[in-house]
Amino acid sequence: MNNDENTVYFVTGNKFKFQEVSEIFKDKNMKYDLKQRDIKTTEIQAHSLREVALFKLNSVKNSIDGSFFIEDAGFFIDSPLKGFPGVYSSYVLKTIGNEGILKLIDDFELSKAHFSAIIAFYHKFIDKILFFEGNVEGRVSNTIRGKGGFGFDPIFIPNILPDKTFAELSAEEKNKISHRGQAFTKLLDYLEKK
Amino acid sequence: MNNDENTVYFVTGNKFKFQEVSEIFKDKNMKYDLKQRDIKTTEIQAHSLREVALFKLNSVKNSIDGSFFIEDAGFFIDSPLKGFPGVYSSYVLKTIGNEGILKLIDDFELSKAHFSAIIAFYHKFIDKILFFEGNVEGRVSNTIRGKGGFGFDPIFIPNILPDKTFAELSAEEKNKISHRGQAFTKLLDYLEKK
Repeated sequence: MNNDENTVYFVTGNKFKFQEVSEIFKDKNMKYDLKQRDIKTTEIQAHSLREVALFKLNSVKNSIDGSFFIEDAGFFIDSPLKGFPGVYSSYVLKTIGNEGILKLIDDFELSKAHFSAIIAFYHKFIDKILFFEGNVEGRVSNTIRGKGGFGFDPIFIPNILPDKTFAELSAEEKNKISHRGQAFTKLLDYLEKK
Repeated sequence: MNNDENTVYFVTGNKFKFQEVSEIFKDKNMKYDLKQRDIKTTEIQAHSLREVALFKLNSVKNSIDGSFFIEDAGFFIDSPLKGFPGVYSSYVLKTIGNEGILKLIDDFELSKAHFSAIIAFYHKFIDKILFFEGNVEGRVSNTIRGKGGFGFDPIFIPNILPDKTFAELSAEEKNKISHRGQAFTKLLDYLEKK
């Protein structure tokens, strides 16, 4: 294996995501060198994360010489919001924010929500695209709680740790159970076997 | 001018929009024959309608033999929602709906909102893309009112007719002042001069 094969690019403009994923790579003592590439990708309006991720990947394929991946995640309030904000999570966060979400569901006793992450990985040396997914089920908190994480973390309570929001977990605790953690564990398992 | 030059295709899957625009063409006694083409376009996530419209137009350009246009519209609640739902209007309507919008702004006395429409027109015989825009300023109603129109019409009150929501206007009244009406008037003026 030459040096090139040990480098994997993570195409993202989000430094929080890059940091979170770098931690995961470090924890696993990966032989791979993870580098950030902040290139503009084309994001489509579609209902599934997989569609969005595949289009995004293909939109930058010609700009990168090497193996790379993009990651896409969404927060889905299955009930009562029919999946909102879903694939539009980052836009919704910037506009109505967590306060807006809490308003939208404040007269509902119960909510059902999940986070999903998908990694679309282009493995240059075999010229193939592979997908790795992760999901975590939970509900929406009544209040905004915690200082960790980012995005909708302060209002999401995972079923597996039902006393805390994602933002009240340490990075290590969160990575163990999170959608992103799961998806990256799958990617790393795959890379380790190569 | 041959027959081909008299046909203009409107690429849309939305029968309400097609109907509204057909009315406008009829009212103006256009020599052009408007036909609906329901082809899947690629819609990107972007902050401006113009970007979304241009990408959409180019995504179907090779599938249509003739002049055609696509139209994109958005409902922007400039205050207090920072432009939400904007280019994601149709998704937001399907998930949280007008009820959701009213909840989001219910503790604000004043709101500022506008509808925008953009037409991206591909004029085959000169091989050019042209844009036609329309905007209407107003505010969000406290309640859902009226049976006409579609989408966010029942919660939008235009400044120019400050007692009624768009859904309380007749199709004719609405077309005279609406964002879509303005944009199409510009397109028709252009076509008439050709």
